Amino acid sequence: MKQHQHKIVDCTIRDGGLVNDWDFSVKFVEDMYRGLSGAGVEYMEIGYKNSAKLLKGGNSGPWRFLNEEFMREVITQKTDTKLSALVDIGRVDENDILPREQSLLDLIRVACYVKDLDKGLDLVQKFHDMGYETSLNIMALSHVMENELLESFEEINKSPVDMVYIVDSYGSMDFKDVDYLVTKFQRQLPEKELGIHMHNNMQLAFANTLTGANKGVTYLDASVYGMGRAAGNCPTELLVSYLKNPRYEVRPILEIIQNHMIQMREKWEWGYLIPYMIVGSLDEHPRVAMAHLNSPEKGQFVDFYDKLTSPETVQDSKE
Amino acid sequence: MKQHQHKIVDCTIRDGGLVNDWDFSVKFVEDMYRGLSGAGVEYMEIGYKNSAKLLKGGNSGPWRFLNEEFMREVITQKTDTKLSALVDIGRVDENDILPREQSLLDLIRVACYVKDLDKGLDLVQKFHDMGYETSLNIMALSHVMENELLESFEEINKSPVDMVYIVDSYGSMDFKDVDYLVTKFQRQLPEKELGIHMHNNMQLAFANTLTGANKGVTYLDASVYGMGRAAGNCPTELLVSYLKNPRYEVRPILEIIQNHMIQMREKWEWGYLIPYMIVGSLDEHPRVAMAHLNSPEKGQFVDFYDKLTSPETVQDSKE
Repeated sequence: MKQHQHKIVDCTIRDGGLVNDWDFSVKFVEDMYRGLSGAGVEYMEIGYKNSAKLLKGGNSGPWRFLNEEFMREVITQKTDTKLSALVDIGRVDENDILPREQSLLDLIRVACYVKDLDKGLDLVQKFHDMGYETSLNIMALSHVMENELLESFEEINKSPVDMVYIVDSYGSMDFKDVDYLVTKFQRQLPEKELGIHMHNNMQLAFANTLTGANKGVTYLDASVYGMGRAAGNCPTELLVSYLKNPRYEVRPILEIIQNHMIQMREKWEWGYLIPYMIVGSLDEHPRVAMAHLNSPEKGQFVDFYDKLTSPETVQDSKE
Repeated sequence: MKQHQHKIVDCTIRDGGLVNDWDFSVKFVEDMYRGLSGAGVEYMEIGYKNSAKLLKGGNSGPWRFLNEEFMREVITQKTDTKLSALVDIGRVDENDILPREQSLLDLIRVACYVKDLDKGLDLVQKFHDMGYETSLNIMALSHVMENELLESFEEINKSPVDMVYIVDSYGSMDFKDVDYLVTKFQRQLPEKELGIHMHNNMQLAFANTLTGANKGVTYLDASVYGMGRAAGNCPTELLVSYLKNPRYEVRPILEIIQNHMIQMREKWEWGYLIPYMIVGSLDEHPRVAMAHLNSPEKGQFVDFYDKLTSPETVQDSKE
């Protein structure tokens, strides 16, 4: 695949932090930035820029509540690899955020359900005015009705947002879904760059990302060794090996995996675990599977499947 | 995906045996047959029908050298799920094989490199004459030149073989490769049913199998929890959940995983391990990665990558 126009956004620290409550050492994040830079990855998402004041979780690692001073201690030398942060609606204090020329960050991404689009675009406008590249990451697209989506496109087209992301929050999409959504987004948002963020519940994150890339999506989210919430993401090492672009080099990513991720995977679980497969195939939010995996009945996933598919459950939750 | 015409061939016992030297208990194989039958899977490949006389490995489990008497002790009651065995050229003693009406087997598959096509088709003819359904599984297709392939199609068309398999032995194919090969096979072998057998080195086995299925390939190889040589296969549980066919039911497969595969995966390794990813992305045979993973340097996969990609290695092995 010829794809000099593609850009990889590595989300290991941000999305992987959802697995271990952002318990990453400074050394690890330094190695990650050095490795991604060596590999030619265009962006590293170094965390969430949410506010500890607006959110329970004061014990979470610092990558959940990024602040500039701390970032400057970790990233002593910027490389070609840009830095990104994600914010959630209602959890970010805009006053925490410096203008881009005073910040290490280049890109601020706003995660947003369609129902909160107005709030999301409002934040985008503010970050845009502060000089940042901006993206709007539309979550849970498999649960959005066509008419809502079409309305949202009108609003997005009026916004200065640079990138619009297709997010498969439930890990339930296949190549036909990706093909359908990318075609729709391309037609309806002709002035915007597109991005894609897939989850690996059905071992389709890499394949779906390639489907998007092949159709011309520019921004490809990934994480090293797939580390991300629940079933995780498209593995960065696969994307870097696969994409035919002379700037990419997989060896520095293999070093990160060898030196860090193998041990981390023994301590924290993510990836293709059967409860995540079950919720992905049922197009359900992973939170029920995460709760199941944290319970003493963890290994009893046939019961978990029965509970999710019993007529009572389906009736209670859907009617 | 509407696909009433698709048939799943579960290879857990046969291909998974390459992981654990066929060290499967009778209880496990009984549960597997009961589970696959309950799930609506059309075929179970119960092992290799190679001859212990022609092959080192007398200590391997019985599923490597199937014999009818033993099979009858295990499969006391045939269901709708047919039974299959694989043979390798030069390793099967045709005199070991009973006519189909005296056998529990329904299908005999012949694994074959293009260079051995004459020998493969000779075996196919014999098994066909004994009344079996037959398949020719053409291995290592990513290393076959077009002219050789076209010649082989002429021979295959003269043979009574029922199914012809596209086999991604090196786990190196993507959706474009599968699309290309399926189109070619369909055009050149219009009278034959096609099958697909993918490996999971780049987490593409399920996605590639769907690409084939969507293009009309009938026979889809899979294994429960992906258990198969090296990176393993397309997971049966994903295919059964995904395919829209009322005969399929994933629950019995989840039971097999819960009762057996989770513990087996702790004892034996298969699946997405970085050395397998490396050979897949380099389109190399997995044997070097399997040797690496059996060595004391197992965790040093950056060295393994360096060795495989150093100019000396590449020159030695390819020039």
